[in-house]
Amino acid sequence: MKRSKKERQQLLIDTIKNNPFITDEELASQFTVSVQTIRLDRLELSIPELRERIKHVASKSFEDEVRSLPLNEVIGEMVDIELDVRAISLFDVKTEHIFKRNRIARGHHLFAQANSLAVAVINDELALTVKSNLSFVKPVKLGDRVIAKATVTKKDSVKNRTFVEVTSTVENEVVFEGHFEMYRTNEHSKGDVT
Amino acid sequence: MKRSKKERQQLLIDTIKNNPFITDEELASQFTVSVQTIRLDRLELSIPELRERIKHVASKSFEDEVRSLPLNEVIGEMVDIELDVRAISLFDVKTEHIFKRNRIARGHHLFAQANSLAVAVINDELALTVKSNLSFVKPVKLGDRVIAKATVTKKDSVKNRTFVEVTSTVENEVVFEGHFEMYRTNEHSKGDVT
Repeated sequence: MKRSKKERQQLLIDTIKNNPFITDEELASQFTVSVQTIRLDRLELSIPELRERIKHVASKSFEDEVRSLPLNEVIGEMVDIELDVRAISLFDVKTEHIFKRNRIARGHHLFAQANSLAVAVINDELALTVKSNLSFVKPVKLGDRVIAKATVTKKDSVKNRTFVEVTSTVENEVVFEGHFEMYRTNEHSKGDVT
Repeated sequence: MKRSKKERQQLLIDTIKNNPFITDEELASQFTVSVQTIRLDRLELSIPELRERIKHVASKSFEDEVRSLPLNEVIGEMVDIELDVRAISLFDVKTEHIFKRNRIARGHHLFAQANSLAVAVINDELALTVKSNLSFVKPVKLGDRVIAKATVTKKDSVKNRTFVEVTSTVENEVVFEGHFEMYRTNEHSKGDVT
Protein backbone atom coordinates (compact mmCIF):
# COMPACT_ATOMS: atom_id res chain seq x y z
CA MET A 1 0.00 0.00 0.00
CA LYS A 2 1.55 3.23 -1.10
CA ARG A 3 0.69 6.13 1.18
CA SER A 4 0.24 9.70 0.02
CA LYS A 5 2.87 12.14 1.21
CA LYS A 6 0.33 13.70 3.54
CA GLU A 7 -0.58 10.35 5.09
CA ARG A 8 3.07 9.42 5.47
CA GLN A 9 3.92 12.72 7.15
CA GLN A 10 1.03 12.41 9.60
CA LEU A 11 2.17 8.88 10.40
CA LEU A 12 5.71 10.18 10.85
CA ILE A 13 4.52 12.73 13.39
CA ASP A 14 2.60 10.09 15.35
CA THR A 15 5.40 7.53 15.21
CA ILE A 16 8.04 9.94 16.48
CA LYS A 17 5.70 11.17 19.18
CA ASN A 18 5.31 7.60 20.43
CA ASN A 19 8.99 6.78 20.15
CA PRO A 20 11.27 9.81 20.07
CA PHE A 21 14.29 7.48 19.87
CA ILE A 22 13.42 5.94 16.53
CA THR A 23 16.12 6.51 13.93
CA ASP A 24 15.67 7.77 10.37
CA GLU A 25 16.82 4.35 9.18
CA GLU A 26 14.16 2.59 11.23
CA LEU A 27 11.49 5.00 9.98
CA ALA A 28 12.56 4.50 6.36
CA SER A 29 12.36 0.74 6.72
CA GLN A 30 9.00 0.95 8.51
CA PHE A 31 7.47 3.19 5.82
CA THR A 32 9.33 1.47 2.94
CA VAL A 33 10.77 4.75 1.69
CA SER A 34 14.35 5.97 1.46
CA VAL A 35 16.19 7.55 4.39
CA GLN A 36 16.47 10.70 2.26
CA THR A 37 12.67 10.87 2.03
CA ILE A 38 12.39 10.67 5.82
CA ARG A 39 14.96 13.46 6.18
CA LEU A 40 13.07 15.69 3.78
CA ASP A 41 9.79 14.93 5.58
CA ARG A 42 11.37 15.87 8.90
CA LEU A 43 12.71 19.07 7.38
CA GLU A 44 9.29 20.05 6.02
CA LEU A 45 7.62 19.20 9.31
CA SER A 46 10.38 20.88 11.39
CA ILE A 47 10.99 17.69 13.36
CA PRO A 48 14.55 17.82 14.69
CA GLU A 49 16.98 14.99 14.08
CA LEU A 50 17.33 12.15 16.58
CA ARG A 51 20.25 13.70 18.47
CA GLU A 52 18.28 16.91 19.08
CA ARG A 53 15.12 14.98 20.03
CA ILE A 54 17.14 13.02 22.59
CA LYS A 55 18.51 16.21 24.11
CA HIS A 56 15.02 17.59 24.43
CA VAL A 57 13.63 14.50 26.11
CA ALA A 58 16.69 14.36 28.36
CA SER A 59 15.79 17.70 29.88
CA LYS A 60 12.79 16.07 31.53
CA SER A 61 13.40 14.90 35.08
CA PHE A 62 12.75 11.35 36.17
CA GLU A 63 13.44 11.97 39.87
CA ASP A 64 9.98 10.86 40.92
CA GLU A 65 9.78 7.89 38.61
CA VAL A 66 12.77 5.79 39.61
CA ARG A 67 12.14 3.84 42.82
CA SER A 68 15.09 1.54 43.40
CA LEU A 69 17.75 4.25 43.72
CA PRO A 70 18.12 8.06 43.70
CA LEU A 71 18.32 9.38 40.14
CA ASN A 72 21.85 10.72 40.70
CA GLU A 73 23.04 7.16 41.31
CA VAL A 74 22.08 6.19 37.77
CA ILE A 75 25.27 6.23 35.67
CA GLY A 76 24.48 8.23 32.54
CA GLU A 77 21.49 10.43 31.86
CA MET A 78 18.06 8.85 32.14
CA VAL A 79 15.92 9.80 29.14
CA ASP A 80 12.99 7.43 29.36
CA ILE A 81 11.54 5.01 31.85
CA GLU A 82 8.48 2.86 32.28
CA LEU A 83 8.93 0.89 35.50
CA ASP A 84 9.19 -2.88 35.11
CA VAL A 85 9.02 -2.45 31.32
CA ARG A 86 11.93 -0.47 29.89
CA ALA A 87 14.36 2.38 30.45
CA ILE A 88 16.80 4.33 28.31
CA SER A 89 19.90 6.30 29.28
CA LEU A 90 22.66 8.23 27.54
CA PHE A 91 26.31 8.18 28.45
CA ASP A 92 28.92 10.46 26.88
CA VAL A 93 32.40 8.95 26.83
CA LYS A 94 34.86 11.49 28.22
CA THR A 95 38.61 11.37 28.89
CA GLU A 96 38.11 9.96 32.41
CA HIS A 97 36.35 6.90 30.95
CA ILE A 98 39.01 5.70 28.52
CA PHE A 99 42.24 3.75 28.57
CA LYS A 100 44.87 6.47 28.13
CA ARG A 101 46.84 4.25 25.81
CA ASN A 102 44.26 3.51 23.11
CA ARG A 103 41.38 5.89 23.95
CA ILE A 104 38.95 2.97 24.12
CA ALA A 105 36.23 3.27 26.79
CA ARG A 106 36.90 1.04 29.77
CA GLY A 107 34.48 -1.86 30.11
CA HIS A 108 33.36 -1.03 33.61
CA HIS A 109 31.84 2.27 32.52
CA LEU A 110 29.66 0.53 29.92
CA PHE A 111 28.78 -2.03 32.56
CA ALA A 112 28.01 0.71 35.11
CA GLN A 113 25.60 2.43 32.71
CA ALA A 114 23.85 -0.83 31.85
CA ASN A 115 23.79 -2.21 35.38
CA SER A 116 22.44 0.97 36.96
CA LEU A 117 19.75 1.08 34.27
CA ALA A 118 18.83 -2.54 35.07
CA VAL A 119 18.49 -1.50 38.72
CA ALA A 120 16.54 1.67 37.90
CA VAL A 121 13.94 -0.08 35.74
CA ILE A 122 12.84 -2.26 38.67
CA ASN A 123 9.66 -1.07 40.33
CA ASP A 124 10.79 -1.83 43.85
CA GLU A 125 12.58 -0.18 46.76
CA LEU A 126 15.38 -2.76 46.59
CA ALA A 127 16.97 -4.23 43.50
CA LEU A 128 20.33 -6.03 43.47
CA THR A 129 22.22 -7.67 40.64
CA VAL A 130 22.61 -11.44 41.10
CA LYS A 131 24.18 -12.52 37.82
CA SER A 132 25.02 -10.96 34.51
CA ASN A 133 26.36 -12.02 31.14
CA LEU A 134 28.11 -9.32 29.14
CA SER A 135 29.29 -9.00 25.57
CA PHE A 136 31.56 -6.16 24.58
CA VAL A 137 30.66 -6.19 20.90
CA LYS A 138 32.58 -3.24 19.53
CA PRO A 139 35.11 -0.82 21.06
CA VAL A 140 33.61 2.48 22.20
CA LYS A 141 35.74 5.58 21.70
CA LEU A 142 36.28 8.96 23.31
CA GLY A 143 33.44 11.28 22.32
CA ASP A 144 30.95 8.51 21.58
CA ARG A 145 27.43 8.84 22.95
CA VAL A 146 26.23 5.47 24.21
CA ILE A 147 22.46 4.87 24.25
CA ALA A 148 21.54 2.00 26.57
CA LYS A 149 18.06 0.46 26.34
CA ALA A 150 16.93 -1.83 29.15
CA THR A 151 13.98 -4.16 28.63
CA VAL A 152 12.38 -6.32 31.30
CA THR A 153 12.04 -9.75 29.71
CA LYS A 154 10.85 -12.08 32.47
CA LYS A 155 9.78 -12.21 36.09
CA ASP A 156 10.08 -15.13 38.47
CA SER A 157 7.90 -14.30 41.46
CA VAL A 158 8.84 -17.47 43.36
CA LYS A 159 12.52 -16.59 43.46
CA ASN A 160 11.93 -12.80 43.49
CA ARG A 161 13.88 -12.44 40.27
CA THR A 162 13.47 -10.05 37.36
CA PHE A 163 15.41 -10.50 34.13
CA VAL A 164 16.54 -7.44 32.23
CA GLU A 165 18.25 -7.20 28.85
CA VAL A 166 20.31 -4.13 28.07
CA THR A 167 21.53 -3.24 24.59
CA SER A 168 23.87 -0.29 24.18
CA THR A 169 24.43 1.36 20.83
CA VAL A 170 26.58 4.11 19.36
CA GLU A 171 25.08 5.67 16.25
CA ASN A 172 22.79 2.67 15.78
CA GLU A 173 25.54 0.09 16.06
CA VAL A 174 25.41 -2.34 18.96
CA VAL A 175 28.51 -1.93 21.14
CA PHE A 176 27.47 -3.82 24.29
CA GLU A 177 24.88 -6.36 25.39
CA GLY A 178 24.11 -7.42 28.92
CA HIS A 179 21.68 -9.88 30.46
CA PHE A 180 20.94 -9.14 34.10
CA GLU A 181 19.31 -11.36 36.69
CA MET A 182 18.04 -8.98 39.36
CA TYR A 183 16.90 -9.72 42.89
CA ARG A 184 14.04 -7.63 44.23
CA THR A 185 12.21 -7.72 47.53
CA ASN A 186 8.73 -7.74 46.14
CA GLU A 187 7.31 -8.85 42.82
CA HIS A 188 4.44 -6.37 42.79
CA SER A 189 4.48 -2.68 42.19
CA LYS A 190 3.79 -0.64 45.30
CA GLY A 191 2.75 2.59 43.66
CA ASP A 192 1.07 3.86 46.83
CA VAL A 193 4.27 3.59 48.85
CA THR A 194 6.33 5.70 46.45
CA MET B 1 52.29 -38.28 59.61
CA LYS B 2 52.37 -36.14 62.70
CA ARG B 3 54.99 -33.41 62.51
CA SER B 4 56.91 -32.11 65.49
CA LYS B 5 56.13 -28.55 66.51
CA LYS B 6 59.52 -27.47 65.20
CA GLU B 7 58.90 -29.10 61.81
CA ARG B 8 55.45 -27.60 61.59
CA GLN B 9 56.70 -24.10 62.42
CA GLN B 10 59.49 -24.32 59.83
CA LEU B 11 56.91 -25.46 57.27
CA LEU B 12 54.67 -22.59 58.32
CA ILE B 13 57.44 -20.07 57.67
CA ASP B 14 58.13 -21.55 54.22
CA THR B 15 54.47 -21.80 53.27
CA ILE B 16 53.67 -18.20 54.19
CA LYS B 17 56.82 -17.02 52.43
CA ASN B 18 55.62 -18.70 49.25
CA ASN B 19 52.05 -17.50 49.60
CA PRO B 20 51.61 -14.49 51.90
CA PHE B 21 47.87 -14.54 51.16
CA ILE B 22 47.17 -17.94 52.67
CA THR B 23 44.65 -17.75 55.52
CA ASP B 24 44.96 -19.31 58.96
CA GLU B 25 42.05 -21.57 58.01
CA GLU B 26 43.82 -22.80 54.90
CA LEU B 27 47.02 -23.38 56.85
CA ALA B 28 45.17 -25.31 59.56
CA SER B 29 43.53 -27.53 56.98
CA GLN B 30 46.82 -28.04 55.13
CA PHE B 31 48.67 -29.02 58.31
CA THR B 32 45.67 -30.86 59.82
CA VAL B 33 45.86 -28.85 63.03
CA SER B 34 43.39 -26.41 64.56
CA VAL B 35 43.20 -22.74 63.56
CA GLN B 36 44.10 -21.91 67.16
CA THR B 37 47.37 -23.87 66.79
CA ILE B 38 48.26 -21.88 63.67
CA ARG B 39 47.56 -18.62 65.51
CA LEU B 40 49.79 -19.62 68.41
CA ASP B 41 52.53 -20.69 65.98
CA ARG B 42 52.33 -17.33 64.22
CA LEU B 43 52.49 -15.54 67.56
CA GLU B 44 55.58 -17.49 68.64
CA LEU B 45 57.23 -16.89 65.26
CA SER B 46 56.16 -13.22 65.15
CA ILE B 47 54.45 -13.73 61.79
CA PRO B 48 51.78 -11.03 61.46
CA GLU B 49 48.17 -11.91 60.65
CA LEU B 50 46.96 -12.04 57.05
CA ARG B 51 45.69 -8.45 57.01
CA GLU B 52 49.06 -7.10 58.11
CA ARG B 53 50.95 -9.34 55.68
CA ILE B 54 48.80 -8.02 52.84
CA LYS B 55 49.56 -4.42 53.79
CA HIS B 56 53.26 -5.19 53.74
CA VAL B 57 53.19 -6.86 50.34
CA ALA B 58 51.01 -4.06 49.02
CA SER B 59 53.76 -1.55 49.60
CA LYS B 60 55.75 -3.17 46.77
CA SER B 61 55.32 -1.50 43.40
CA PHE B 62 54.27 -3.41 40.31
CA GLU B 63 54.70 -0.51 37.91
CA ASP B 64 57.24 -2.37 35.78
CA GLU B 65 55.44 -5.69 35.80
CA VAL B 66 52.04 -4.85 34.35
CA ARG B 67 52.18 -4.52 30.56
CA SER B 68 48.62 -4.08 29.29
CA LEU B 69 47.87 -0.84 31.12
CA PRO B 70 49.52 1.71 33.43
CA LEU B 71 49.38 0.56 37.05
CA ASN B 72 47.24 3.55 38.06
CA GLU B 73 44.50 2.31 35.71
CA VAL B 74 44.15 -0.86 37.76
CA ILE B 75 41.12 -0.43 40.02
CA GLY B 76 42.22 -1.41 43.52
CA GLU B 77 45.73 -1.99 44.78
CA MET B 78 47.82 -4.59 43.01
CA VAL B 79 49.53 -6.85 45.52
CA ASP B 80 50.80 -9.73 43.43
CA ILE B 81 51.21 -10.54 39.76
CA GLU B 82 52.75 -13.23 37.59
CA LEU B 83 51.95 -12.30 33.98
CA ASP B 84 49.71 -14.75 32.12
CA VAL B 85 49.35 -16.80 35.32
CA ARG B 86 47.69 -14.90 38.17
CA ALA B 87 47.23 -11.53 39.84
CA ILE B 88 45.83 -10.30 43.14
CA SER B 89 44.43 -6.90 44.10
CA LEU B 90 42.81 -5.29 47.11
CA PHE B 91 39.90 -2.88 47.05
CA ASP B 92 38.62 -1.04 50.10
CA VAL B 93 34.93 -0.20 49.92
CA LYS B 94 34.44 3.49 50.77
CA THR B 95 31.40 5.74 50.85
CA GLU B 96 31.73 6.67 47.18
CA HIS B 97 31.33 2.99 46.20
CA ILE B 98 28.04 2.20 47.92
CA PHE B 99 24.34 2.70 47.34
CA LYS B 100 23.48 5.50 49.77
CA ARG B 101 20.26 3.76 50.67
CA ASN B 102 21.52 0.40 51.89
CA ARG B 103 25.32 0.89 52.08
CA ILE B 104 25.86 -2.10 49.78
CA ALA B 105 28.78 -1.78 47.35
CA ARG B 106 27.62 -1.08 43.80
CA GLY B 107 28.20 -3.93 41.39
CA HIS B 108 30.22 -1.96 38.90
CA HIS B 109 33.00 -1.33 41.41
CA LEU B 110 33.43 -5.06 42.04
CA PHE B 111 33.33 -5.56 38.29
CA ALA B 112 35.87 -2.77 37.74
CA GLN B 113 38.32 -4.35 40.20
CA ALA B 114 37.92 -7.80 38.63
CA ASN B 115 37.92 -6.61 35.03
CA SER B 116 40.98 -4.40 35.40
CA LEU B 117 42.79 -7.31 37.09
CA ALA B 118 41.82 -9.57 34.16
CA VAL B 119 43.33 -6.95 31.83
CA ALA B 120 46.45 -6.47 33.97
CA VAL B 121 47.31 -10.17 34.17
CA ILE B 122 47.64 -10.39 30.37
CA ASN B 123 51.23 -10.31 29.17
CA ASP B 124 50.54 -8.13 26.16
CA GLU B 125 50.46 -4.47 25.17
CA LEU B 126 46.75 -4.73 24.30
CA ALA B 127 44.07 -6.64 26.18
CA LEU B 128 40.34 -6.04 25.77
CA THR B 129 37.38 -7.74 27.39
CA VAL B 130 35.18 -9.60 24.90
CA LYS B 131 32.71 -11.40 27.15
CA SER B 132 32.18 -11.93 30.82
CA ASN B 133 29.89 -13.87 33.11
CA LEU B 134 29.46 -12.46 36.58
CA SER B 135 27.97 -13.74 39.81
CA PHE B 136 27.36 -11.36 42.68
CA VAL B 137 27.40 -14.01 45.39
CA LYS B 138 27.08 -11.96 48.58
CA PRO B 139 26.51 -8.26 49.26
CA VAL B 140 29.69 -6.31 50.00
CA LYS B 141 29.43 -3.57 52.62
CA LEU B 142 31.02 -0.24 53.42
CA GLY B 143 34.42 -0.83 55.04
CA ASP B 144 34.92 -4.29 53.52
CA ARG B 145 38.28 -5.11 51.99
CA VAL B 146 37.77 -7.08 48.78
CA ILE B 147 40.63 -9.40 47.72
CA ALA B 148 40.33 -10.32 44.03
CA LYS B 149 42.38 -13.20 42.65
CA ALA B 150 42.67 -13.57 38.89
CA THR B 151 43.83 -16.86 37.38
CA VAL B 152 44.53 -17.47 33.70
CA THR B 153 42.75 -20.72 32.89
CA LYS B 154 43.03 -21.17 29.13
CA LYS B 155 44.53 -19.68 25.99
CA ASP B 156 43.22 -19.95 22.46
CA SER B 157 46.03 -18.83 20.18
CA VAL B 158 43.95 -19.19 17.00
CA LYS B 159 41.36 -16.67 18.14
CA ASN B 160 43.81 -14.60 20.21
CA ARG B 161 41.78 -15.24 23.33
CA THR B 162 42.83 -15.69 26.94
CA PHE B 163 40.37 -16.85 29.59
CA VAL B 164 40.65 -15.47 33.10
CA GLU B 165 38.73 -16.41 36.22
CA VAL B 166 38.44 -13.89 39.01
CA THR B 167 37.25 -14.75 42.52
CA SER B 168 36.74 -11.94 45.00
CA THR B 169 36.51 -12.58 48.71
CA VAL B 170 35.85 -10.59 51.88
CA GLU B 171 37.33 -12.24 54.98
CA ASN B 172 37.60 -15.56 53.15
CA GLU B 173 34.01 -15.59 51.94
CA VAL B 174 33.43 -15.46 48.21
CA VAL B 175 31.44 -12.33 47.30
CA PHE B 176 31.93 -12.20 43.52
CA GLU B 177 32.98 -14.48 40.69
CA GLY B 178 33.73 -13.46 37.13
CA HIS B 179 34.77 -15.36 34.02
CA PHE B 180 36.45 -13.15 31.45
CA GLU B 181 37.15 -13.86 27.81
CA MET B 182 39.94 -11.47 26.84
CA TYR B 183 41.18 -10.45 23.42
CA ARG B 184 44.91 -9.85 23.07
CA THR B 185 46.99 -8.90 20.05
CA ASN B 186 49.63 -11.53 20.50
CA GLU B 187 49.63 -14.89 22.21
CA HIS B 188 53.30 -14.83 23.11
CA SER B 189 55.07 -12.85 25.74
CA LYS B 190 57.25 -10.11 24.32
CA GLY B 191 59.45 -9.54 27.32
CA ASP B 192 62.08 -7.78 25.24
CA VAL B 193 59.64 -5.09 24.11
CA THR B 194 58.57 -4.11 27.62
